[in-house]
Amino acid sequence: MRRIRVIGIGPGDPDQVTLEAVAAMHSVAYFVVADKGPDDPLLEARRELLKRHVGSAAQVVAVRDPERDRADPADYRGAVSDWHEARAEAYERVILQQPGDVGFLVWGDPAFYDSTIRIVERVLARGNVEAEWDVIPGISSLQLLAARHRIVLHEIGQPITVTTARKLREAVDAGADNILVMLSARIDLDGFDEWHIWWGANLGTEHERLVAGPVADVAAEIDEARAATKADAGWVMDAYLLRR
Amino acid sequence: MRRIRVIGIGPGDPDQVTLEAVAAMHSVAYFVVADKGPDDPLLEARRELLKRHVGSAAQVVAVRDPERDRADPADYRGAVSDWHEARAEAYERVILQQPGDVGFLVWGDPAFYDSTIRIVERVLARGNVEAEWDVIPGISSLQLLAARHRIVLHEIGQPITVTTARKLREAVDAGADNILVMLSARIDLDGFDEWHIWWGANLGTEHERLVAGPVADVAAEIDEARAATKADAGWVMDAYLLRR
Repeated sequence: MRRIRVIGIGPGDPDQVTLEAVAAMHSVAYFVVADKGPDDPLLEARRELLKRHVGSAAQVVAVRDPERDRADPADYRGAVSDWHEARAEAYERVILQQPGDVGFLVWGDPAFYDSTIRIVERVLARGNVEAEWDVIPGISSLQLLAARHRIVLHEIGQPITVTTARKLREAVDAGADNILVMLSARIDLDGFDEWHIWWGANLGTEHERLVAGPVADVAAEIDEARAATKADAGWVMDAYLLRR
Repeated sequence: MRRIRVIGIGPGDPDQVTLEAVAAMHSVAYFVVADKGPDDPLLEARRELLKRHVGSAAQVVAVRDPERDRADPADYRGAVSDWHEARAEAYERVILQQPGDVGFLVWGDPAFYDSTIRIVERVLARGNVEAEWDVIPGISSLQLLAARHRIVLHEIGQPITVTTARKLREAVDAGADNILVMLSARIDLDGFDEWHIWWGANLGTEHERLVAGPVADVAAEIDEARAATKADAGWVMDAYLLRR
């Protein structure tokens, strides 16, 4: 039976990969990797990671990522679902053409705000590919955020809400006072003056930046650091903890 | 300058350790490890992990864990705070007596429901030990729970509440409908008949057990699996995701 392995590879530092993930990388015949277009920095970073852990013979099949329909923001879930199906079709084509065990490399941990697990389920549900599959956890950027700031992600015995920038206000309205925010396309800290923030961008990469402090004091510094990260690296991906 | 390194070592499987954590283990002179009494299974597991990754020469200083005062459940935070201070004093004594860089091994990830970061802060705040310190993230049992069940920990774009069994009802009352529960001394699923559960015990160890399904269908099976895990392993530590 063929195997499909969904491998968490951590936030970017090739040392933040588990031994289990390295063994999984060695076990597959090739890697299917989303290609988001010319100069996709993450595609190159994945190749570097494979060169380091598997060697330069590692076989990578880059699959051009279908466009996600962003026309109707109200139908976010519908648009994501269509995009998942288009990805599933594209991956199915590769897997049917090319024999052997297949690896998917996932930045961070496949369990948090990543679509790979859902897409592999769709590939298998389509019924044309027969395979066993497993998931290898990886270090998430939210964990590296905590490690870099040397914090526990909650107060003693208290809860954590993990959410996206899009849903941040809903979490506050529901009474959450300790919120980890991922996937922020932009950062808007209006109304959080009484909160403390621990912020990080491009965690685990050479362009990593960190800022922490009362929001009222550091909001401008974060805006500048965010812009500087984007200027230096060509992209910016940030995560932050807000605590009231 | 001396270094204190707080090293996340994952949920139990020695392969679920990052390369960074292995390098950190090699970099320190000795490890300070809490000893919870005769036959502490976690102490033995830590020794095994070190033997595997550092070799049998790894030096371990086991520090008898102070008793936590459980007399007044209403003063949970006060009791935990006293216990942290007692631990800080005990660790300070060892660190002052024995020169060299110090490693603390933390099951899972130091960022989630673990006291080591707070205790190291207290050791340094006492002012007798001078050291730099850093934190190495590790795979948390909640990530392994997700990987074993091959799930994403949230629905598309939706939030996750991470909390303790003690605070589970509060999360439900606040409207959370996707809740990761850690640190459950016992499991009580009354009132969750309409929810789905993904449950795991002793994740990453040879006694790992998994159950998933509608709560109404699997609650009894989980009770049995929990008791069987405890009988087999001598201890049980579980985590679960509840989704409405």
